[in-house]
Amino acid sequence: MLAQAAAKLGLQCHVFSSEADACSFQVVQRTTLADFSDQAALEQFARDCDVITYEFENVPAAAAAFLAKRKAVLPDPGVLATTQDRLIEKNFVRNLKIATAPYAPVDDLAQLVAALAKIGTPAVLKTRRFGYDGKGQVKIRKPSEAAAAWQAVGEAPSILEGFVDFECEVSVIAARTGDGQVACFDVTENEHRNHILKISRAPARIPAALLAEAPRIAKRIAKAFDYVGVLGIEMFVVRRNRTPVLMVNEIAPRVHNSGHWTLDGATVSQFEQHIRAIAGWPLAKPVRIGRATMVNLIGAEVDDYARSLKVPGASVHLYGKGEGRPGRKMGHVTTIVVK
Amino acid sequence: MLAQAAAKLGLQCHVFSSEADACSFQVVQRTTLADFSDQAALEQFARDCDVITYEFENVPAAAAAFLAKRKAVLPDPGVLATTQDRLIEKNFVRNLKIATAPYAPVDDLAQLVAALAKIGTPAVLKTRRFGYDGKGQVKIRKPSEAAAAWQAVGEAPSILEGFVDFECEVSVIAARTGDGQVACFDVTENEHRNHILKISRAPARIPAALLAEAPRIAKRIAKAFDYVGVLGIEMFVVRRNRTPVLMVNEIAPRVHNSGHWTLDGATVSQFEQHIRAIAGWPLAKPVRIGRATMVNLIGAEVDDYARSLKVPGASVHLYGKGEGRPGRKMGHVTTIVVK
Repeated sequence: MLAQAAAKLGLQCHVFSSEADACSFQVVQRTTLADFSDQAALEQFARDCDVITYEFENVPAAAAAFLAKRKAVLPDPGVLATTQDRLIEKNFVRNLKIATAPYAPVDDLAQLVAALAKIGTPAVLKTRRFGYDGKGQVKIRKPSEAAAAWQAVGEAPSILEGFVDFECEVSVIAARTGDGQVACFDVTENEHRNHILKISRAPARIPAALLAEAPRIAKRIAKAFDYVGVLGIEMFVVRRNRTPVLMVNEIAPRVHNSGHWTLDGATVSQFEQHIRAIAGWPLAKPVRIGRATMVNLIGAEVDDYARSLKVPGASVHLYGKGEGRPGRKMGHVTTIVVK
Repeated sequence: MLAQAAAKLGLQCHVFSSEADACSFQVVQRTTLADFSDQAALEQFARDCDVITYEFENVPAAAAAFLAKRKAVLPDPGVLATTQDRLIEKNFVRNLKIATAPYAPVDDLAQLVAALAKIGTPAVLKTRRFGYDGKGQVKIRKPSEAAAAWQAVGEAPSILEGFVDFECEVSVIAARTGDGQVACFDVTENEHRNHILKISRAPARIPAALLAEAPRIAKRIAKAFDYVGVLGIEMFVVRRNRTPVLMVNEIAPRVHNSGHWTLDGATVSQFEQHIRAIAGWPLAKPVRIGRATMVNLIGAEVDDYARSLKVPGASVHLYGKGEGRPGRKMGHVTTIVVK
């Protein structure tokens, strides 16, 4: 989708991937299939590019650093160092005086037991690195489950997070240019199933005060990173006493699944905003064209795509991934109700 | 744009072009650069495809026929035989009892003189084949210009058309499936400069009766061709006595420049409709999301693209063509005023 946004602007992409079946290979002319540790391949790739970006946050730090010595890598790989580690990320957010769930670092079972005593149950133990879509996390319902949970995360460095009884989950997709301009899309309301995003709705049906506050939080985070490109910030709406407030859950240093509705539901997509930002172009001012509902097609659900083809205002996106494995995002359908 | 629409639906394209700098090469994985007379290349290409389509109407008939013996070519190459020849096309339209400008075949100077006597001046002499964007045509203001005009078109088989004093030019972009379903986009109003499309506006500002009549004409033409895919029909709005009526000017057996606004201004684009039709998928029901204005960036105008980047609701498309030669369509900007 990034490559297609670039093509719309007359820009060409060279895709580097370690996966032979990367679906982005289908939509560009120049491709490199190589491991992220292959320095000769990285070197050649860097030579062919004017600016380099990434679309998933687990790019190995060493590869990003190698490329950044040769060409501009945007957003700055320093962002990855923060967002690849849940503890560093949480500390980063807390240092900005932005609310998060209560949390504590866990490096061994004794620390986990102590953290549970402090934070209470239910709580969630999450590995600090390489977790996504619910992978690398386990819920702890009572303190006696500590040892089993510690086993379940493979005794990997983790954090314990207090379980947040949220009213809803929302996200902000923000774009920021090198000279500090920021444009946010309308706050999106997200519904997860089995820890995987299932439905996004824009605009979010939350109080006006929070609709205004959420992009302010996103801007503070983007500014603190001196971020260039698009990032997604997931937040919880929780009730404190009687007042709903926002808590930052996670930062995704990339275009974000909850922003896919912008392809059909706004006058500019998150993908084009990202390309504009990293190319040093001005951002567009996104205008939402109606009420948007995006539904992910996960695993075998993709086989039902045909049902959506005739629904008025529904836009079907199929990713051209081979196999509909359980839990794999295979496509999405966005339905727009024009204002 | 067709390849991008296919990719959105999870379908892969193989592009065959005789031009090394074909910009579609930038957005697909599989490409063939070969002459349309290269049967070995055509053979291999056909083997790699499930269905074949074309995006310009001057595909040599022999190449289209060669491919059609091997794989489905949609729309049927028989359509090309009609639309590649202005005389056959005009006869085809007249046989459907659809109005056109008065016309007469011209194979030599004597016929031209006779045709001028019958049709009157001003009139336009147009070569029967290979004309587009005003190429291969010359206006005749008075009968004495006949010989010069005949020279100007290279004494090629031509038609003489009566000059139509139209109120405006409109077009209908229609999509038709193999089982006869038709979906039309809202009638578009077109403004040409130097015979090249400059501005398209949707919806057209013409009387309601004509807004209803134009798609009916398009459907009759599509049905007569047993057409599969998207076609563009250019029409003139002319006043007969006091009543405005439609006259068909030209049929484009392909996605059409005057339908580019659908990329940003409708819930489905003409490109996706074409891909759906040729893939045997159902058409979407296009919903226009606002008032759309598309402006072509022609030749050096493309250098001003940056001006449009910040205009709210403006979507900039740059085609990645190398050189901004005079008269060359280099990109377009669509501005949407959301309802």
